[in-house]
Amino acid sequence: MALTMYQASAPRFVNTLKNLSAVLDKAQAHAEAKKIDPLVLTSSRLYPDMFALARQVQVACDTAKGAVARLAGVDVPKHEDTEQSIAELKARIDKTIAFIDGVKPAQIDGSEDKDLTIKLGPREVNWKGMQYLLGFALPNFYFHATTAYDILRHNGVELAKRDFIGNP
Amino acid sequence: MALTMYQASAPRFVNTLKNLSAVLDKAQAHAEAKKIDPLVLTSSRLYPDMFALARQVQVACDTAKGAVARLAGVDVPKHEDTEQSIAELKARIDKTIAFIDGVKPAQIDGSEDKDLTIKLGPREVNWKGMQYLLGFALPNFYFHATTAYDILRHNGVELAKRDFIGNP
Repeated sequence: MALTMYQASAPRFVNTLKNLSAVLDKAQAHAEAKKIDPLVLTSSRLYPDMFALARQVQVACDTAKGAVARLAGVDVPKHEDTEQSIAELKARIDKTIAFIDGVKPAQIDGSEDKDLTIKLGPREVNWKGMQYLLGFALPNFYFHATTAYDILRHNGVELAKRDFIGNP
Repeated sequence: MALTMYQASAPRFVNTLKNLSAVLDKAQAHAEAKKIDPLVLTSSRLYPDMFALARQVQVACDTAKGAVARLAGVDVPKHEDTEQSIAELKARIDKTIAFIDGVKPAQIDGSEDKDLTIKLGPREVNWKGMQYLLGFALPNFYFHATTAYDILRHNGVELAKRDFIGNP
């Protein structure tokens, strides 16, 4: 089986998003057991000017759906950033996964050299599909998913790396 | 250009390791400016039973060299985990990059279906090359590189996500 753009993208995003959803379940259970308001966890951050947990999850979702949509050449679904509770964040993950699952391998495969223009804040950059996926989308996605995990670990939620990695 | 196992592995590890080395330079400069012992930073962790910064860097390096070596079918170089200072951690990154740079694309390409047996603590798992790279090695690598960044951010080192992503 040859490595394809689909295999390097959609199923990897979905796998880590499912793991992140299960990590949020553990955060919810921890909060209930310790009688902590779960919103304390979702609004926690590692430094005052870093994103809080809720925003880390939203950006991880946005990075995944944006990459899949751009590589497939379909509109990026717009999801409002209104989530605060763990249940709402899990629903955000669910709708991100549902979108990704609706994109077929043939829509993404062959996008290695596709010209993409990506808005990064005020500037626009031009990347090829492969460069965008491997050099930007995947590291960016794992960055936010890991930081979500790190925020919860820092707050005492009992997690291990296998919760993040899941079943490869 | 088709996506290959080499492109999805070696240059991605090298790019992020170079970014991590530059992040460590900023940590060194921060420590000097604030008159903090840099060993306070390299021994910092986000929770008592998480790895400290130095160990996060070592494991990121091990994950990268292990993946490249296993996919290429060569011995994994053994690097002792003795680093404490930022200069020592940067040297560890340098020798990891030197090893990866010595592996040629043809040694890794075509390893999608290669049978690999990976030791995970006390147990052994059997994975195909593609599954190992995409589902274990890359997320694991980004997990430790991100957590290294997060530890420094948490300690007030001025970093932004572009320091982590670098130039895709």
